[in-house]
Amino acid sequence: MSRKRGFASDNNSGVHPSVLEAMTSVNEGHVVAYGDDPYTAAAIEKIRKEFGEEVEVFFVFTGTAANVLGLKAATENWNSVICADTAHIHCDECGAPEFFTGCKLLTVSTPDGKLTTELIKKHLHGFDFEHHAQPKVVSVTQATELGTIYTPSELKEICDFVHSYSMLVHMDGARICNAAVALGVPFREITADAGVDILSFGGTKNGLMYGEAIIFFNTPLSQNFKYVRKQGMQLASKMRFIGAQFDAMLTGRLWYRNADHANRMARLLANEVSAIPGIKITREVQINGVFAIVPPEIIPGLQKEYFFYVWNPETSEVRWMTSWDTTEDDIMGFVKLLRERMAAK
Amino acid sequence: MSRKRGFASDNNSGVHPSVLEAMTSVNEGHVVAYGDDPYTAAAIEKIRKEFGEEVEVFFVFTGTAANVLGLKAATENWNSVICADTAHIHCDECGAPEFFTGCKLLTVSTPDGKLTTELIKKHLHGFDFEHHAQPKVVSVTQATELGTIYTPSELKEICDFVHSYSMLVHMDGARICNAAVALGVPFREITADAGVDILSFGGTKNGLMYGEAIIFFNTPLSQNFKYVRKQGMQLASKMRFIGAQFDAMLTGRLWYRNADHANRMARLLANEVSAIPGIKITREVQINGVFAIVPPEIIPGLQKEYFFYVWNPETSEVRWMTSWDTTEDDIMGFVKLLRERMAAK
Amino acid sequence: MSRKRGFASDNNSGVHPSVLEAMTSVNEGHVVAYGDDPYTAAAIEKIRKEFGEEVEVFFVFTGTAANVLGLKAATENWNSVICADTAHIHCDECGAPEFFTGCKLLTVSTPDGKLTTELIKKHLHGFDFEHHAQPKVVSVTQATELGTIYTPSELKEICDFVHSYSMLVHMDGARICNAAVALGVPFREITADAGVDILSFGGTKNGLMYGEAIIFFNTPLSQNFKYVRKQGMQLASKMRFIGAQFDAMLTGRLWYRNADHANRMARLLANEVSAIPGIKITREVQINGVFAIVPPEIIPGLQKEYFFYVWNPETSEVRWMTSWDTTEDDIMGFVKLLRERMAAK
Amino acid sequence: MSRKRGFASDNNSGVHPSVLEAMTSVNEGHVVAYGDDPYTAAAIEKIRKEFGEEVEVFFVFTGTAANVLGLKAATENWNSVICADTAHIHCDECGAPEFFTGCKLLTVSTPDGKLTTELIKKHLHGFDFEHHAQPKVVSVTQATELGTIYTPSELKEICDFVHSYSMLVHMDGARICNAAVALGVPFREITADAGVDILSFGGTKNGLMYGEAIIFFNTPLSQNFKYVRKQGMQLASKMRFIGAQFDAMLTGRLWYRNADHANRMARLLANEVSAIPGIKITREVQINGVFAIVPPEIIPGLQKEYFFYVWNPETSEVRWMTSWDTTEDDIMGFVKLLRERMAAK
Repeated sequence: MSRKRGFASDNNSGVHPSVLEAMTSVNEGHVVAYGDDPYTAAAIEKIRKEFGEEVEVFFVFTGTAANVLGLKAATENWNSVICADTAHIHCDECGAPEFFTGCKLLTVSTPDGKLTTELIKKHLHGFDFEHHAQPKVVSVTQATELGTIYTPSELKEICDFVHSYSMLVHMDGARICNAAVALGVPFREITADAGVDILSFGGTKNGLMYGEAIIFFNTPLSQNFKYVRKQGMQLASKMRFIGAQFDAMLTGRLWYRNADHANRMARLLANEVSAIPGIKITREVQINGVFAIVPPEIIPGLQKEYFFYVWNPETSEVRWMTSWDTTEDDIMGFVKLLRERMAAK
Repeated sequence: MSRKRGFASDNNSGVHPSVLEAMTSVNEGHVVAYGDDPYTAAAIEKIRKEFGEEVEVFFVFTGTAANVLGLKAATENWNSVICADTAHIHCDECGAPEFFTGCKLLTVSTPDGKLTTELIKKHLHGFDFEHHAQPKVVSVTQATELGTIYTPSELKEICDFVHSYSMLVHMDGARICNAAVALGVPFREITADAGVDILSFGGTKNGLMYGEAIIFFNTPLSQNFKYVRKQGMQLASKMRFIGAQFDAMLTGRLWYRNADHANRMARLLANEVSAIPGIKITREVQINGVFAIVPPEIIPGLQKEYFFYVWNPETSEVRWMTSWDTTEDDIMGFVKLLRERMAAK
Repeated sequence: MSRKRGFASDNNSGVHPSVLEAMTSVNEGHVVAYGDDPYTAAAIEKIRKEFGEEVEVFFVFTGTAANVLGLKAATENWNSVICADTAHIHCDECGAPEFFTGCKLLTVSTPDGKLTTELIKKHLHGFDFEHHAQPKVVSVTQATELGTIYTPSELKEICDFVHSYSMLVHMDGARICNAAVALGVPFREITADAGVDILSFGGTKNGLMYGEAIIFFNTPLSQNFKYVRKQGMQLASKMRFIGAQFDAMLTGRLWYRNADHANRMARLLANEVSAIPGIKITREVQINGVFAIVPPEIIPGLQKEYFFYVWNPETSEVRWMTSWDTTEDDIMGFVKLLRERMAAK
Repeated sequence: MSRKRGFASDNNSGVHPSVLEAMTSVNEGHVVAYGDDPYTAAAIEKIRKEFGEEVEVFFVFTGTAANVLGLKAATENWNSVICADTAHIHCDECGAPEFFTGCKLLTVSTPDGKLTTELIKKHLHGFDFEHHAQPKVVSVTQATELGTIYTPSELKEICDFVHSYSMLVHMDGARICNAAVALGVPFREITADAGVDILSFGGTKNGLMYGEAIIFFNTPLSQNFKYVRKQGMQLASKMRFIGAQFDAMLTGRLWYRNADHANRMARLLANEVSAIPGIKITREVQINGVFAIVPPEIIPGLQKEYFFYVWNPETSEVRWMTSWDTTEDDIMGFVKLLRERMAAK
């Protein structure tokens, strides 16, 4: 079976060896299940070091779960959640946010996947009017699904604006490590300091096996969250293995190294392919994804050797994601193939 | 930090070394996420070998998820689910079945955690009457939460009876390995052959790190299940690691050895403690759990050294669970402690 | 088509003429829809006169809606609601409470449809334990589905007990008028003064066409209730017609006269049939229902002339409900028929 | 209290006298509750005369309920529903569709409130992809919230297109009577014949007190609908009074006369106000609503005498709805006032 690294997604890669080692190292003996164990406690401690001593942290299995349960903690059934129409919560979670929270998602079309106060404003009406689902949360993705990044000041402006309506800010941080590296800022600057209320802190795309953390900066929202998590079927019995993974990720800045590497590989890829006649990079490469227009007739052949997804079939725009384990050889091999196929057209 | 093995639960133990090794062995390279990978396919193949070539298999993260999503696949919102009042779905899932399926749970008081056609019958009325939540599923647990087992013929009788009402049988098999070992029968005999429609096939309590399988014997019920799983936030991105675990569990009958060992340790424990004056075993020991009455005043002291749970505070009945990694030394050490404490009373 | 009055239910009767007249009288001209009209305001004023100046009142269409939305206002999805296993919310609402609130219903078997602190206590455990749906509401029915009544002091004892667990008391008052009349007490004594938090104040069974009121004694629970009602599809556009009905019901103590009459008719019926050899009254007749054992072979014949329901097919226990419009002739005609059929056996 | 007729909405009016009379006429005696009565049967018969002998009909209380329960009958939790971004189900039902069905609403921006196959197409992708909520229903409103109408051929084109994707068409017919009158076609031509699967047939805006009908042309969808309705808290006990209203509405074409009158009053209003300098009619007047730009400073003064709503505060566009009971005097009085206020500016 083929184990070739492709560019389909940063979750097609395996687990970073240090993470796997950490998991193995906690395997011995019995610890209390469901999170009341020392490994989970240690991981939470490390997360607090990064994000703030006061934050409340809950581990779950998947990014979708982190987003959905976080939104649940912030809403009543009759609320609405505002997001970009490219947001993962809108496009890729099979309606789980609506089903689980009961809320309406209000989408905004954006040029680059990023919300602005202007774009949000469109949906800020109907307050106190019982016929209207009440706007309660704005959900931003950092980095966005289109590979763009919010600056700390952009986030702060959004958070201040949203809070001025007594609303809350949720951040889908499936790739927050890539964003922090690209911006060269600590996590706090794009979360707690900016005013984010709830964060989905992604681990899987940074080299973990499974596990995401929901971080509450607005801690009263977490008051009864343990029940939400359990009823949401996201309470791990052998929690220590999630704890160990996050511990490893936050030890020796592994998260930074993994994200930095992936980002650099994307830049390398972008530089190389932009030199190939007929290939057009369509979006600024800020993190670990490259979007480009590729002639449709050569796509299947490329995919056979290096798997990746077509982002927009109508424009023949593809997405290439790099990962913590992408090598320069992977990049150069793919570039070579692409150059050959373009020449042979 | 203490890593002493206690008797709290079979999910307080770690991961079997062979399972961990299998996880490590699939880590290299990229594979397609979300289950379309060769490791997941191989695991499903092995499950089909055990349970029937025709079954449909879906992996999820937790036992609660396996139960709840399985019930969801079998019901409409206005159905009801009949179960023992000791069932995990009723007592230990924080209302997830009701919340996620919309269904009513109808409970039956039982002497031993086991349903019978007589007990089920009580709730079989109001069919076609729109004021009444329509009975649709009977959920049995094999082995039960009280450590008892249904025989193949008992299961067959229940399934035939339930099917005669055009209803379905769900089995919570969190400890089905322990039951199969105790009965000395292959899985099929207590599932497919008996007429079970949907099974939660538990892995975590048998030495896995995480991961349970939902097995559909009644395959039309699985038709759209992939959406149910995704919306239920239970679709793993790096699915290969669940596949690898189940593959390992079903290789060389590891599941059997693990369950058999745990069962034997429970019998050893029961034999030993029943010889201690003042300790009363309260239930027949059929699998890997021992229930006993212990004087309340000595319980905290015992728990400090070997953690376990009080099952019924009113009667001072405790539950001791053994696991795949319980050793004879663990047993004898605990028995010694218990004997001393009883003597010192 | 037959318009004969039977004993099936107090909602098989029509609308009291004064109520219909009141509806007609508010028909002229335009008023603002959805409750912001003077007729609705007037009705709420009258309800406050009866139940307390501070209460918050919301009208809905059906008794099921009143119960379910009231429970929704008092719970989170991961809560449980304790009730008698004969409660309407458990037996006759097609699982709407579970579906709409997400909560688990915990039932108690009772001799007479009435909860006691002893019976409730059974379910009061697992607090703060995330695996356990958290008990939050005790729901009592006044008068009960078995025709029994809680005294003010019984209610007070339950409310005090429930509140001591930081839980809430919901009352299904579909027949609270019949109870108040039977007890000879004002509404307040069996609601606000006893400590009830939320009441479903039934109108339809007292001679209205449609419409029930949810009364919040615990007013903070009503804070966002307007959204719950609208999302619950229970906000009437032409609300004035519900307002007019409640206004009429509370004018000149119409509610009292209607309930008193129905209660008296039930007593008359009970007195008469208890004199018929072979007929056994099975429950004390406290309100407008009579339960009796009737030989099964004569039931269909009786039903053809005076429709009523079999309560328990196994014991051949039937339920005869009287209504505001039941006449002495209805009673005597039925008694005569019953006597003849018994004699002819 | 003021009972002046305004132009706020066609549900601010009262009940047509013939309807009220019909309700009164069925009040005598007992009939079986919950719809098994002759009046309900007669109304269904009349609906079948209009819409097709094969249709299945269920009465509910509100338009929101009709829409939401109809959508529920056509969907699974993981489906999506496509509608205009001005649709009532999106803007005015407090998120009830999402909460009750679990589905995602996918909105389309339209020039005139009307969907087209081109506009729908945008959302028709991601089929069979489990990350994507599966498109299942297209919901059209006839007449639309902007007062526009689909022609029979436009509807047919949409239905054929939608069906070619194995999807379903839902129609919100809160004002279908106004549309049928304006088009001069029988109901069937814009429902059954066009291919509509489920219709919310509105009564309240046509002069009823309360009550809407859900009509299934695609009758297999109605198979278990009685449970959906009951669990949706929309099963009326004294159903005969809804039956009587629909019977009256369909007797002597009362529905036609009511809608025709309202439409004519809107045309009169539009003609008159368009002659006033400074008032701009913004949308073609096809049914009983007039949209116009009015200087913001005079709006409050006008509203005090004739209540109406501002449709778009940013453009100062208002909406004036006429009703079955609007008189020419109402129109001329309002026009006179408007002319005076405009002159006095």
